[in-house]
Amino acid sequence: MRYFEDVEVGDTERFGRYEVTREEIIEYARQFDPQPFHLDEDAARASIFGGLIASGWHTGAMFIRMVCDGMVPGSATSGAVGFDDLKWLKPVRPGDVLSVESVVREKVPSRSRPDRGLVKIESRIGNQRGEVVMSLVSLVIFRRRPSA
Amino acid sequence: MRYFEDVEVGDTERFGRYEVTREEIIEYARQFDPQPFHLDEDAARASIFGGLIASGWHTGAMFIRMVCDGMVPGSATSGAVGFDDLKWLKPVRPGDVLSVESVVREKVPSRSRPDRGLVKIESRIGNQRGEVVMSLVSLVIFRRRPSA
Repeated sequence: MRYFEDVEVGDTERFGRYEVTREEIIEYARQFDPQPFHLDEDAARASIFGGLIASGWHTGAMFIRMVCDGMVPGSATSGAVGFDDLKWLKPVRPGDVLSVESVVREKVPSRSRPDRGLVKIESRIGNQRGEVVMSLVSLVIFRRRPSA
Repeated sequence: MRYFEDVEVGDTERFGRYEVTREEIIEYARQFDPQPFHLDEDAARASIFGGLIASGWHTGAMFIRMVCDGMVPGSATSGAVGFDDLKWLKPVRPGDVLSVESVVREKVPSRSRPDRGLVKIESRIGNQRGEVVMSLVSLVIFRRRPSA
């Protein structure tokens, strides 16, 4: 199990493979983000995006799914307190295949809670053409190694 | 229709009413964020959260749903390019009822695209007890008023 003590600034991980489908883009949009360019191909063609694109919040959901499958197992994490500087850089379209590259940028021990610390992790979500579609800096809670 | 020209720094809007259910928390977690404290009540009680809480990305999805229903209609928006300083401040639990307060913080005309501009909007998502559960600053694209 990787605890706060085991995390090093500069640690880099590459993980995830998320196949984006038209059906899932539309299903997510119907439930949470019913804007025309996420919902309807004809309306999307007429928009500034020129075709159907995933909700940015859906791309975030795909990211956290890849994190849960690829990074959380084996890490003593307890979720995140937030994030900074999220950018949607390129549209995410049906047929795209996404993956993640994450780099540890900073470690901050908690002052008030001696059993945990915050780790700032910069993540870039890329597509099958090597384009970065989204980036963000997550503030992740790691638990400290229990005393022996 | 409210175009970029019509938006003023300081404009404040209150909107939305989102009832959070146990079923939706678990459904979202199964699809996108299968961590024990979002998925399973017993595991959640044993976690640092002390009970079942919504995925932070699910809270973001509830936010964008309230934005789509309460703010997008009547506004000449074309989505967002990202956001800054997202904080998950309090857990979101089954039975909570969320709403939004948004304040325009800054307007930035696009240099490269004369037909649009960026509007920085700070949003606070609150619950039925008046506690802010999430805050963020969105960078929203507004279209300019077409020439007569």
